[in-house]
Amino acid sequence: MLFQVEMDVNVPIGFDQDEFNRLKTAEKKLSQDLQEKGVWRHIWRVVGQYANVSIFDVEDNAELHDVLMGLPLYPFMDVRVTALCRHPSSIRDNDR
Amino acid sequence: MLFQVEMDVNVPIGFDQDEFNRLKTAEKKLSQDLQEKGVWRHIWRVVGQYANVSIFDVEDNAELHDVLMGLPLYPFMDVRVTALCRHPSSIRDNDR
Amino acid sequence: MLFQVEMDVNVPIGFDQDEFNRLKTAEKKLSQDLQEKGVWRHIWRVVGQYANVSIFDVEDNAELHDVLMGLPLYPFMDVRVTALCRHPSSIRDNDR
Amino acid sequence: MLFQVEMDVNVPIGFDQDEFNRLKTAEKKLSQDLQEKGVWRHIWRVVGQYANVSIFDVEDNAELHDVLMGLPLYPFMDVRVTALCRHPSSIRDNDR
Amino acid sequence: MLFQVEMDVNVPIGFDQDEFNRLKTAEKKLSQDLQEKGVWRHIWRVVGQYANVSIFDVEDNAELHDVLMGLPLYPFMDVRVTALCRHPSSIRDNDR
Amino acid sequence: MLFQVEMDVNVPIGFDQDEFNRLKTAEKKLSQDLQEKGVWRHIWRVVGQYANVSIFDVEDNAELHDVLMGLPLYPFMDVRVTALCRHPSSIRDNDR
Amino acid sequence: MLFQVEMDVNVPIGFDQDEFNRLKTAEKKLSQDLQEKGVWRHIWRVVGQYANVSIFDVEDNAELHDVLMGLPLYPFMDVRVTALCRHPSSIRDNDR
Amino acid sequence: MLFQVEMDVNVPIGFDQDEFNRLKTAEKKLSQDLQEKGVWRHIWRVVGQYANVSIFDVEDNAELHDVLMGLPLYPFMDVRVTALCRHPSSIRDNDR
Amino acid sequence: MLFQVEMDVNVPIGFDQDEFNRLKTAEKKLSQDLQEKGVWRHIWRVVGQYANVSIFDVEDNAELHDVLMGLPLYPFMDVRVTALCRHPSSIRDNDR
Amino acid sequence: MLFQVEMDVNVPIGFDQDEFNRLKTAEKKLSQDLQEKGVWRHIWRVVGQYANVSIFDVEDNAELHDVLMGLPLYPFMDVRVTALCRHPSSIRDNDR
Repeated sequence: MLFQVEMDVNVPIGFDQDEFNRLKTAEKKLSQDLQEKGVWRHIWRVVGQYANVSIFDVEDNAELHDVLMGLPLYPFMDVRVTALCRHPSSIRDNDR
Repeated sequence: MLFQVEMDVNVPIGFDQDEFNRLKTAEKKLSQDLQEKGVWRHIWRVVGQYANVSIFDVEDNAELHDVLMGLPLYPFMDVRVTALCRHPSSIRDNDR
Repeated sequence: MLFQVEMDVNVPIGFDQDEFNRLKTAEKKLSQDLQEKGVWRHIWRVVGQYANVSIFDVEDNAELHDVLMGLPLYPFMDVRVTALCRHPSSIRDNDR
Repeated sequence: MLFQVEMDVNVPIGFDQDEFNRLKTAEKKLSQDLQEKGVWRHIWRVVGQYANVSIFDVEDNAELHDVLMGLPLYPFMDVRVTALCRHPSSIRDNDR
Repeated sequence: MLFQVEMDVNVPIGFDQDEFNRLKTAEKKLSQDLQEKGVWRHIWRVVGQYANVSIFDVEDNAELHDVLMGLPLYPFMDVRVTALCRHPSSIRDNDR
Repeated sequence: MLFQVEMDVNVPIGFDQDEFNRLKTAEKKLSQDLQEKGVWRHIWRVVGQYANVSIFDVEDNAELHDVLMGLPLYPFMDVRVTALCRHPSSIRDNDR
Repeated sequence: MLFQVEMDVNVPIGFDQDEFNRLKTAEKKLSQDLQEKGVWRHIWRVVGQYANVSIFDVEDNAELHDVLMGLPLYPFMDVRVTALCRHPSSIRDNDR
Repeated sequence: MLFQVEMDVNVPIGFDQDEFNRLKTAEKKLSQDLQEKGVWRHIWRVVGQYANVSIFDVEDNAELHDVLMGLPLYPFMDVRVTALCRHPSSIRDNDR
Repeated sequence: MLFQVEMDVNVPIGFDQDEFNRLKTAEKKLSQDLQEKGVWRHIWRVVGQYANVSIFDVEDNAELHDVLMGLPLYPFMDVRVTALCRHPSSIRDNDR
Repeated sequence: MLFQVEMDVNVPIGFDQDEFNRLKTAEKKLSQDLQEKGVWRHIWRVVGQYANVSIFDVEDNAELHDVLMGLPLYPFMDVRVTALCRHPSSIRDNDR
């Protein structure tokens, strides 16, 4: 089941750089693990923004919530979730 | 080069149903041709909306504009375009 | 799987009253069938508005989309969909 | 008498974690007491957000105000209140 | 129980003037009846707008909804409802 | 001459509680003095908000400005001012 | 007593041109009469918009309301009213 | 050449009062100098707000920018600039 | 003197196509004349929109207003005007 | 390939002035280097704002993202990116 998730990252000016880099490294590792598992299906960078557009494929709403709340950078994020489903014009079997 | 494109379709109440169906059929055919060519890379339906979230892969801005203006349902659409690029955490080579 | 759905109904001034009443009757019947089946779990009227707040319980995103697009009054509606899940403080087993 | 209440919780980055956990525990206990009494009728988590959608059943506006102002996490919340009433299509006697 | 209700009236250009005047007369009569009964406690005109700010005193949410839906000009209105209660600084016994 | 004034109070998390209580006591006293004089005609609490809806009766714009700027809690407030006048349907002589 | 009034004029495409010109001529005459009397103190055109920014000097709120509702183009306008008073830095005696 | 400029002043709670008063005094002096020169043609206080509505008369855009950036309180301001020109109904020769 | 002007064109569905094409041809001719004269310095198409971003170089506000109101497609446009001046980092002499 | 980029700079009150000036000098140097190379084609100051409107000419989305993220003042900026292409009425060959 697919969801579009848009994440904007806001780092307060003056936040400890080392601490933030540690969180960023953990975020990247977790993101790539979830991509390997097929849960975080796509992630794109929004040009000119510290933000991404992502597609998640999860069993249900609860799994998506748990995944997002577990992101190391979650406390710095604004998150928008949009439920998706197969478009009748789509020719790709897994875009559902 | 990738873009997220969000399209909302608004049909005035009372618009001729046959004419609209004819446009919808043409839209679907064009969409599927562009998907076959790899230009319209993904299309998902937004749940509960006559709307879609799409990913386009084009040579440049001009190509994207021409594609969107050529859609049979364009006069009924609100369109939002967001430029994307590869996310440093992405593990998929073609998500750039 | 639960979703909050907010529906605002907008009837153009001058729209044929008989046609609208026919649609409203069909909407009510379908709504009550879906409530009997447990799909449309709650529906409340928003005070002072031709609008409702509803809770749907569906198998997946696709089912919710099909249900909403099939509503007789859908062409008159603005719809907002919010994915829900169990709250850790909830004491009701079926509010998930 | 029913109200929809939407609560968004915003914790400033760097706020003392122990103090916040203490408040969260108190909030959970109070929420469950109010659920037992039938005042806080439903509470759902919004997917991807530190937020909830709730339904309250109170004697009058004043009771709702007192309940909300007494929540331990109130100082961290944005709250939106929507007055509800029975929907003519509802088949559930207590959804009024 | 008190509510602030804000009503904006929008008349489409070209709407039949006699029909609108007939509705306006009926609206005024109903408004004054409700004021006599103490249900529509205050009504003020917003300067420069075809709009009013009103205070209603009703038994419960359902009564407020029925009153508002019964207004002859309701189909032309945007309505915003805000639940009120006694302010701890108020010195007026009936402003609750 | 009447104005609706809506005041939202925002207290930064961590603001000195004693200092704030001192300001709140002064605010309440001044509010009640102004109510006695008939300047601050009504004050209602907005349910679920640290906010009020008020009606002021002043000689002119300048008096209203001076009254509002003199409120002890003014530095914590967002204020919205709406000029009112007598509604042609009103039956209350002093609601002008 | 001074108010800033911002007026945006929206003419539906296809509205009868002669009728509109007749209203515009009446509007201009009335505006100039009110300027002569000192009620409509200033009127400026907003660049690139069919809109104006104006300053009115009236006895009270009711006079402003009557003046605005009497404008021949009022049914085509969006109007925003802002109450003004003397600024402590002003050196002009009549800007109050 | 005329511009409407709207300035909202936001002082962080806890900002040094003496420093702010020093800036306010400098702002007032500069404002009055610019009024004497005819550059800052009008300044009005917005009722209930730490804000003003002003009319500037400058040689060109660059002069307006330099004047605004030179205001001692500029770092505390939100500023909105609207280009104005003579209204065809205006009877005042210098309102252009 | 420079201004950024953003123009969105909205054509009602069903508007006479021949009439619109006639206006578009006149618009293009006028735009190119103004570009030749150096008044309409730049015009770019916004990707995916019937909209443009333009830079105008005019003597004063009044000239800009007259130019924009004279555009054949003006009745179909939403227009936003932003006053510009030379940026201190600019290396181009005529970008002022 | 062209993009409009709008940048608003927000400096927290009390931020170290020397550090900010150092960043501003680095920003100016980088901006001018990019202008020399033809990448940052235009930069204008928005009147009354610490903001600019710019036109970038880049190979692709990724180049634009890298350029913007590399700006020394980026952490202080709100950035809006708009993809542009040649307007059919344009007479300038390089405005594409």
